[in-house]
Amino acid sequence: MSAYDELMAHVRETQLLAEVAGRLGWDMETVMPHGAAAQRGDEMAAMENVLHARRSDPRIGEWLAAAEPADDVARAQLRLIRRSYDQATKVPADLAGRIARTTARAHGIWARARAEEDVAAFLPALAEVLALRREEAAALSGGTNPYDALVDQYEAGMTEARLAAMFDEMRPRLVALRAAILDKPKPGQVNGRFDEAAQLALSREIAATFGYDFDRGRIDKAVHPFSSGSGADVRITTRTSETDPFNCLYSTIHEVGHAAYEQHVDPAYAATPLGSGASMGVHESQSRIFENQLGRSRAFTGHLFGRMSETFGDLGVADAEAFYAAVNRVSDGYIRTEADEVQYNLHIMLRFDLERAMIAGDLEVGDLEAAWNDRFLADFGYAVDKPSNGVLQDVHWSYGLMGYFPTYALGNVYAGGLHAALRRDVPDLDDRLAAGDVSAATGWLAETVQRHGGLFEPAEVIARACGGTVGPGPLLDYLEAKFGAIYDL
Amino acid sequence: MSAYDELMAHVRETQLLAEVAGRLGWDMETVMPHGAAAQRGDEMAAMENVLHARRSDPRIGEWLAAAEPADDVARAQLRLIRRSYDQATKVPADLAGRIARTTARAHGIWARARAEEDVAAFLPALAEVLALRREEAAALSGGTNPYDALVDQYEAGMTEARLAAMFDEMRPRLVALRAAILDKPKPGQVNGRFDEAAQLALSREIAATFGYDFDRGRIDKAVHPFSSGSGADVRITTRTSETDPFNCLYSTIHEVGHAAYEQHVDPAYAATPLGSGASMGVHESQSRIFENQLGRSRAFTGHLFGRMSETFGDLGVADAEAFYAAVNRVSDGYIRTEADEVQYNLHIMLRFDLERAMIAGDLEVGDLEAAWNDRFLADFGYAVDKPSNGVLQDVHWSYGLMGYFPTYALGNVYAGGLHAALRRDVPDLDDRLAAGDVSAATGWLAETVQRHGGLFEPAEVIARACGGTVGPGPLLDYLEAKFGAIYDL
Repeated sequence: MSAYDELMAHVRETQLLAEVAGRLGWDMETVMPHGAAAQRGDEMAAMENVLHARRSDPRIGEWLAAAEPADDVARAQLRLIRRSYDQATKVPADLAGRIARTTARAHGIWARARAEEDVAAFLPALAEVLALRREEAAALSGGTNPYDALVDQYEAGMTEARLAAMFDEMRPRLVALRAAILDKPKPGQVNGRFDEAAQLALSREIAATFGYDFDRGRIDKAVHPFSSGSGADVRITTRTSETDPFNCLYSTIHEVGHAAYEQHVDPAYAATPLGSGASMGVHESQSRIFENQLGRSRAFTGHLFGRMSETFGDLGVADAEAFYAAVNRVSDGYIRTEADEVQYNLHIMLRFDLERAMIAGDLEVGDLEAAWNDRFLADFGYAVDKPSNGVLQDVHWSYGLMGYFPTYALGNVYAGGLHAALRRDVPDLDDRLAAGDVSAATGWLAETVQRHGGLFEPAEVIARACGGTVGPGPLLDYLEAKFGAIYDL
Repeated sequence: MSAYDELMAHVRETQLLAEVAGRLGWDMETVMPHGAAAQRGDEMAAMENVLHARRSDPRIGEWLAAAEPADDVARAQLRLIRRSYDQATKVPADLAGRIARTTARAHGIWARARAEEDVAAFLPALAEVLALRREEAAALSGGTNPYDALVDQYEAGMTEARLAAMFDEMRPRLVALRAAILDKPKPGQVNGRFDEAAQLALSREIAATFGYDFDRGRIDKAVHPFSSGSGADVRITTRTSETDPFNCLYSTIHEVGHAAYEQHVDPAYAATPLGSGASMGVHESQSRIFENQLGRSRAFTGHLFGRMSETFGDLGVADAEAFYAAVNRVSDGYIRTEADEVQYNLHIMLRFDLERAMIAGDLEVGDLEAAWNDRFLADFGYAVDKPSNGVLQDVHWSYGLMGYFPTYALGNVYAGGLHAALRRDVPDLDDRLAAGDVSAATGWLAETVQRHGGLFEPAEVIARACGGTVGPGPLLDYLEAKFGAIYDL
């Protein structure tokens, strides 16, 4: 066997083990008995030790030095393997194990603290997680910007400075758009009690419409909707609200966007570093364009209005036009995952600024709730009423995912660029969406983005699909046009 | 750290990884999407490679040579670690990986073949599994009896010859009892359509009655009922039949017996070789005594008759006495897992003789169906009507579990001994069972057997609990007395 082949055999087995570790996370969120949390933490730490040992195996360094790539695919594999090896060898095995164990425990504590509106109960665990992640960031960054090292884990090549610049460009136009909209009368809302089983059945139908392959996946309920797994086993979760059917439906469409990405990667890349999405930002671009630019379009909501009326009877809105306005209603709200397209990125900016302050050591966890509440009041104009609507609402920090939130905004920006390119390439898109046919759009995304998996760098796969580098411009143009029309601005 | 402490740290992590691998099996049987089967096979093979490498790590040999046990617990740990190390070092890593991969695939093929009544579709996969297990048995036995090596994996110290002798002692009395019963008029059966949700709810109640801890476990539906996991995460599965509520109820009680064993092991042994049951035979003794000697007793069925009448209304039997006879009805049937206490061990003897012939090379898989059908006709007096009622009914051979079936009969024999001892130690047992209170019995089993985990050799833990070596006598005495009374022999 050549050095390259030996390397790939090693890496393939590591990928399979990483799938197993990922499945433990799915299990923990969906079906695991409560009393198993501590043991599960130990199990995940044991898996993390195995993965870390395999990813930092010194033979990888030797194989990388000797490997001669035969083509662009092999070159891309080596790029991702080198990246993983560099990251793994910079983080001591013991630290990686402690992070796995501590975050598994912190997650359970967060879930209880959120249910009991008890921030203080979560803070000691969060402090431990933060300290470990700062230790990891210091090891990864080697004295340069530690937050950059964390962001880079989720989005290769992205930096705090570039994100800050992106947000600086977005903020004035989003703030102005939000203010203009909130000056206008609010559209009506969908009204009623919506049977949970019917919501779940309709969300399964819509998932299939958006191309989710149930033979290689499944949908379950969980506190936090997510997508998990690669290749032939990509599972998603959703949640329901008796009074808000859009929570379930659009959570599902969002996660189907993530899952479709994983399900559409070229099968030749299965169980290799190329076999998953290019980055968290590119991943989020797929879920966001599924959810927003397609799922919340005037054309598709016309179809959805029909299916929901058939399913639930009178929805409390007059017609498809009123339904469209209700789906895209901009109003006050505390929860990021329920935020409309206009305000969503403001929620991200808040988290970005708080978490980079924590990583920099400028914000202690003891001051976090106050900092959150102050900033929320300043940005949104009303006070947080309870921790589950504020600092305890998101799962991420309990898992140590500092540096992850900005990739959501990046995904929105990428989705804006992809949507503009999609409209150019598929001129009759609205006619198709109005008929409930999403396949031209999902097919275009599968062909231009999803099938490549990790073949290209994140920014490159987006640029190739869009025909040039993408900044916040197309997203902001789209938002101003869409909401300008709905709100008669 | 001492050699013993280093060894235990290594072994603890291996146990945790084995829990993870076990969880993959649970997932495959309960929630995994169909299209993920091939990938899951690769994942399980990757886990098997990791486990095999850890179990055959040459450092274990060095640690074992240097370790000085401080007490009996440490001595027992070393005994089980040495056993595992011997087995692992005798089986090449490549062979272990091939077995994991092939059995995962064969299991999927078996499930389809069973659904389609297509024996031929299963045979090539079975031939592969058999060849691999023969190869493994040859490596383990080093030229002595290969079937002994397979049995020993499930029941330390047990041999083909001792099992054959045990069956020779059981067979005449069981055949005579069966013949006498089948000469008598059959008791009536429970009759009706039994709502699935109500069956599952009642089976959960009864599981709790038998001490199953839902905070450290869960119950799901699966094709084949099983128990999976150790320590704080012990899950069971059950199945339902619309016309036969006993299928769900007694499958559940049976699996709760297995799960209670795992849940009651001394927590100090968690994630060590002592942290699980002593053997498959001792495990089966717990499930069998839960299901039969307790669950199908006259006393407990009186309680169950009340609860089932409250749940389902008229059951089609006159009173508790008729209900007891219906629960213990001896009648023709093809399926081992549905067999009554009298005929169950005859099903095992059939499988024991066929599988040891396959391992010895005296029976080819191409001749297996005919051999099964001939033997079934000879033993039971009527012909197998379809493969799912015959050679395709059990999951075991698809998983390569040759040598496993006889531990079921051994479990029955051990249960017979334990039941006699329990009756001596808890004289008012029937009064308690009649009131639906199983705790004196489950407490006695937890104290005398379950809490010890793997501390003693299988035969020893049973002998300690029973006050002496246990043969088939107590089981046969119990069966003759119980069924003699029901059938007025």
